[in-house]
Amino acid sequence: MQDRTNNLPIGIFDSGIGGMTVVRAMARLLPQESIYYFGDTIRCPYGPRPLEQVRRFALQIGHWLDQQQIKLLVIACNTATAAALTELQQELDIPVLGVIMPGARAATQATQNRRVAVIGTKATIESGLYAESIRTLDAGITVFSTATPLFVEIAESGLKLDRNPVETFMSRLTSVYTRPALQEIARDYLDPLKRCQVDTLVLGCTHYPLLRPLIETIMGPRVAIISSADEVAADVAGLLRRRELFNDGSAPATRQFATTAVDLPEFMHLATAILGHVVDRVRQVDLTELGA
Amino acid sequence: MQDRTNNLPIGIFDSGIGGMTVVRAMARLLPQESIYYFGDTIRCPYGPRPLEQVRRFALQIGHWLDQQQIKLLVIACNTATAAALTELQQELDIPVLGVIMPGARAATQATQNRRVAVIGTKATIESGLYAESIRTLDAGITVFSTATPLFVEIAESGLKLDRNPVETFMSRLTSVYTRPALQEIARDYLDPLKRCQVDTLVLGCTHYPLLRPLIETIMGPRVAIISSADEVAADVAGLLRRRELFNDGSAPATRQFATTAVDLPEFMHLATAILGHVVDRVRQVDLTELGA
Repeated sequence: MQDRTNNLPIGIFDSGIGGMTVVRAMARLLPQESIYYFGDTIRCPYGPRPLEQVRRFALQIGHWLDQQQIKLLVIACNTATAAALTELQQELDIPVLGVIMPGARAATQATQNRRVAVIGTKATIESGLYAESIRTLDAGITVFSTATPLFVEIAESGLKLDRNPVETFMSRLTSVYTRPALQEIARDYLDPLKRCQVDTLVLGCTHYPLLRPLIETIMGPRVAIISSADEVAADVAGLLRRRELFNDGSAPATRQFATTAVDLPEFMHLATAILGHVVDRVRQVDLTELGA
Repeated sequence: MQDRTNNLPIGIFDSGIGGMTVVRAMARLLPQESIYYFGDTIRCPYGPRPLEQVRRFALQIGHWLDQQQIKLLVIACNTATAAALTELQQELDIPVLGVIMPGARAATQATQNRRVAVIGTKATIESGLYAESIRTLDAGITVFSTATPLFVEIAESGLKLDRNPVETFMSRLTSVYTRPALQEIARDYLDPLKRCQVDTLVLGCTHYPLLRPLIETIMGPRVAIISSADEVAADVAGLLRRRELFNDGSAPATRQFATTAVDLPEFMHLATAILGHVVDRVRQVDLTELGA
């Protein structure tokens, strides 16, 4: 009975493809664990939507993944975490982790001058949850938050630019973020934060790790960049260890993908690009199947 | 300059001797780090005092330790954490960690049935901070809290019972906690929590790890016992790693002790008993020196 639970996959969802950065971090830290990923691509982006609507979407997906038999759920989307973490924790019987508190904790540990910047979608920043979480952990920290909604589009456009093989993914993205127009957008967002003399920047959106080189170039080498992906993977590892819920290794780890996307080849292409291994099977889920 | 900071000790304080369990955990995980411990024995226990008064004491000690040159401060006392973590984080320039959030996080990770018990002093339990922190991390968890003030006295009486050498510390404590009267006190506290069918119990007072065998016997093998001492040590390690603040090993790690206790031999005896190595030097600090 316990073994059956142990060998169930970890469920992970995002509004689209950004949560793949969490899958990547998870696969690196916990390669023996199976993963069931859900990307709500057809309703992406969540960032500009009202929190109440994002909450409804997140509850639909959380319940759907729970029905597929998972042992743990990770909300790999900051907007959905801000909107629905509490409700999903209350409604599901499995543990549910969000990406905000792990990122906040890492920022608290990293800052030396106690000036921390957070960038994210409009909904995430307006929820105020990052600032609140950081100050719960260290009341001496000043938090500077800015919504950087265009970053999601830049990341996605970098990924969609062409369909080169996996190996050129980083160079492709590089060619995107070195374009003057995109650099300018990024500078408009980040320069005010630099002037606040922050020494730590939280990537408060799971799309943003894809833009890390661009962001690092602008912020400079003395600003620590925090990605929630690594932090939430570490938290999942801690939870599995404490509950003795590790996969027992009796069967190879699996990777399953589901999406509301219409263009499945594109979804597989993006997943392949981010994960660095070929994703050639994905389950298409209709919104009505989600109860939407 | 950076190296000078790296080689400063970690400051740790408690109302008395209970925080030594944090020193013990810290020395185990980070043996290369120097430690400066302060025990406010003359004003112990903090538990029955108003939070406002405990806050004043904690601020005095925090500032005093900061003046001794430390790189980091750990409030190794749940009551003082509840009373003054926020204020100390705001007033000091060094990072300040409390024991409540680390314990809360561990409990959140450990519970399977999402029913968690917390025991602590009257002041800690009445502050409601444990329940709040646990529910911030997982809103699906039900928290059952009980003040168990006599546990501090039981722990201290076990330690003070006689002055046998270090090796007999556990057997001495065993002889205390197997006494029928003490078992009865413990049962009165813990039986109601058992009936709530919790699967996780947080020792929300740094004295309580000294009573762990007694508490485990009563709660049974299926209840996970969480001690904040190990958790806060892990958090300190994470912070030192992220800020590259580890001791550089150019000089051996030191252990310094200061106390407001009048009976210094007793303080050294208790420290020796808990730490398992001889503590034969301690600095006596007058309350006026603290600015009290």
